Amino acid sequence: MRDIGLGLLGFGTVGAGVVEGLQRNGELLSARLGARPVLRAVADLDIASDRGVAVDTGLLTRDAAAVVADPAVDVVIELIGGTGTARALIVDALRRGKPVVTANKALLAEHAEEIFGLAAETGTDLYYGASVGGGIPIIRALREGLVANRVDQVLAILNGTCNFILTEMESSGLSFDEALAEATARGYAEAEPSLDVDGHDTAHKAALLASLACGGLVGSRAVPVEGIRRLALADIRNALDLGYRIKLLAVIKTAGDRLDVRVHPTLVPLDHVLASVNGVYNGVVVEGDLAGRTLFYGRGAGRNPTASTVLGDVADVIRNLLSGSVRRIPGLGAGAGPEPVSPADSRSRYYFRLMLADRPGVLATIAAAFGNREISIASALQKGGHEEGYVPVVFVTHEAVGRNVAQALAEIRGLDVVGAEPVAIRIEG
Amino acid sequence: MRDIGLGLLGFGTVGAGVVEGLQRNGELLSARLGARPVLRAVADLDIASDRGVAVDTGLLTRDAAAVVADPAVDVVIELIGGTGTARALIVDALRRGKPVVTANKALLAEHAEEIFGLAAETGTDLYYGASVGGGIPIIRALREGLVANRVDQVLAILNGTCNFILTEMESSGLSFDEALAEATARGYAEAEPSLDVDGHDTAHKAALLASLACGGLVGSRAVPVEGIRRLALADIRNALDLGYRIKLLAVIKTAGDRLDVRVHPTLVPLDHVLASVNGVYNGVVVEGDLAGRTLFYGRGAGRNPTASTVLGDVADVIRNLLSGSVRRIPGLGAGAGPEPVSPADSRSRYYFRLMLADRPGVLATIAAAFGNREISIASALQKGGHEEGYVPVVFVTHEAVGRNVAQALAEIRGLDVVGAEPVAIRIEG
Repeated sequence: MRDIGLGLLGFGTVGAGVVEGLQRNGELLSARLGARPVLRAVADLDIASDRGVAVDTGLLTRDAAAVVADPAVDVVIELIGGTGTARALIVDALRRGKPVVTANKALLAEHAEEIFGLAAETGTDLYYGASVGGGIPIIRALREGLVANRVDQVLAILNGTCNFILTEMESSGLSFDEALAEATARGYAEAEPSLDVDGHDTAHKAALLASLACGGLVGSRAVPVEGIRRLALADIRNALDLGYRIKLLAVIKTAGDRLDVRVHPTLVPLDHVLASVNGVYNGVVVEGDLAGRTLFYGRGAGRNPTASTVLGDVADVIRNLLSGSVRRIPGLGAGAGPEPVSPADSRSRYYFRLMLADRPGVLATIAAAFGNREISIASALQKGGHEEGYVPVVFVTHEAVGRNVAQALAEIRGLDVVGAEPVAIRIEG
Repeated sequence: MRDIGLGLLGFGTVGAGVVEGLQRNGELLSARLGARPVLRAVADLDIASDRGVAVDTGLLTRDAAAVVADPAVDVVIELIGGTGTARALIVDALRRGKPVVTANKALLAEHAEEIFGLAAETGTDLYYGASVGGGIPIIRALREGLVANRVDQVLAILNGTCNFILTEMESSGLSFDEALAEATARGYAEAEPSLDVDGHDTAHKAALLASLACGGLVGSRAVPVEGIRRLALADIRNALDLGYRIKLLAVIKTAGDRLDVRVHPTLVPLDHVLASVNGVYNGVVVEGDLAGRTLFYGRGAGRNPTASTVLGDVADVIRNLLSGSVRRIPGLGAGAGPEPVSPADSRSRYYFRLMLADRPGVLATIAAAFGNREISIASALQKGGHEEGYVPVVFVTHEAVGRNVAQALAEIRGLDVVGAEPVAIRIEG
């Protein structure tokens, strides 16, 4: 049985999971593949700390570049993350024609053209399954299982930190700050939580899924992002009263030859499958024109689930090496993709919460501001509780155009009958 | 761009879906693959009936063998089903070294050694993704995405007809016969429903999933099967009262070096993800040692969903042809599989419903019959309603061994305090 040498860059949480996975299931994997994956080197700046997994110290090195260059390393696994060192190492590996397996969504989403372009130019395999969805094989499902479908829509919960926070806010009645503190205490949130809670991590993943689903290269800079930091408990409760649950969603929709990709807190009907994806779990709903609706659900992060998908990609690369079929699967963005829809043209149903002066004629004024922009109100509901002469009123609309909503909100903000900043949250599903 | 010739055997529901899928998304598929899938021939005994899709009549033929032999046909798609003609045609195609894509679970499960053996012997690709789960890419997920996992357990709802019937029984209070009539009226059940309702279809699929998940070739004959025909509405209602929903499950469990595969009606806790898989939908929950719990959910049957997966397999074969990587993925049953557990050794929790004479000491007699076989009762509940001097009593047990349960039931059946046949249904999840 042939040995395939693996070089691991980054011995953090997921890196340790990969090492443990190889130790635990290496024999099983060899039997399934007909070749033996052998760890040749593990590079990290810190090669002293205990990762809870025993590694031959001879394998540990601080010199990641030497691992990439090592002739005994056939496959490079990049788990450093970020767009600095990791980028240079991946570029080096691809230039050497060494297949790369990575979970680095930030790099792939922000430098898609460079990285995928270089993989194509050098004819080298680049697998990135663990960049989206942790242990859920969603990249593979879109790229291979559902390849015959025109993808009409993807709605996805892709960030376990945000989903945990939203679940905690609803179930325990916590504010965002309290729920974030709880997530931090449990190790679900980073010390610097911005990448997660401000939606950037979800946007990176949305860009990758959109490119896969619809073709072309969607950079994450093209994805409008709104995180969950400003979400009020009142809106989570109002949503529930109306039969919805608020989730941070990646929304990918094709509309004719246009592509609408965005990340924002979203009201999802309680009977929609994504409303049941709670806590740190992730869920992806794909609507294909042939397959119909398919749901993929599982652990979207964490040491072992992510290692599972990294090793699934390693298995693919090994199968390619064994069968001499490099670049069997084209990189991301094969074919011209659809033109993006600007947020101004994007269409959604909306939930609005306005603080309105409690006096006659106010509702008519607001209704006119909406009606003049072709925003049709499906229901309006005055919620209890005065606040300095203002009462909260919730509106649910039919589908409206982003530009019109922005204009209506600008007008409403300027009205003297409106207290506090209006809240607008989209509805999908 | 290279043309790849496809020969379609079987122009039934799924065959028509494949033709329509190619017409609708052929261009998209070509862009994604870098080669053009071209339908060269469609064989069926009936080439006159309208299938709701326009086909060049020059492509239609009654001579399936000639399609397999046609040099312009590079890939054979078998959608005839069954173990007669289809078997001979697949054997012929494999002998000619032509890759085969099939949805024929009966053939693969009943003749696994012959068909997978021949594919290995002739070095030919055999893809069968649509044989399990319709539009859900579950075969691919187990074989590739989760390949690095030791699979500890698979629990799956794999037959939409049965799931529809069970959902109808619960939601509309119908008997099995009434719900079956409803399924037939809606086109969800065949005129001869036995393959579905007696569990054989699920057993075929369970055998394939078990082979994939655990290695070895599990023939469907080795899978103990019990269908839903004898299921009483009373048990569905009792289950709900106890916090469970009854589903026809394929259960695949590894226990040490043993494999426990079975198909039977099962009580599933209401908060388990499979309890929410209702109507004609299918759901598969995989517990991997690295990925943790993953759920795959979607349309488990039907024209377009099944065509989606058939075409996904065709795409794989085309990628293999383009990259010269035939047999990149080993066939089913790579490696020696675990030994099967006999039903006598199989362990489960149980739900029992007994009709017991309403007089003192009866419960003690029953409790002794269970206790003597190490069946520990977690709860007992007398349900309302006398029937000729007997009252229904429901027992929920802790985990018990199949042999002991069979012995206890044999003894209980013989007691004069017991009216009617005891009901025993396993609990999983």
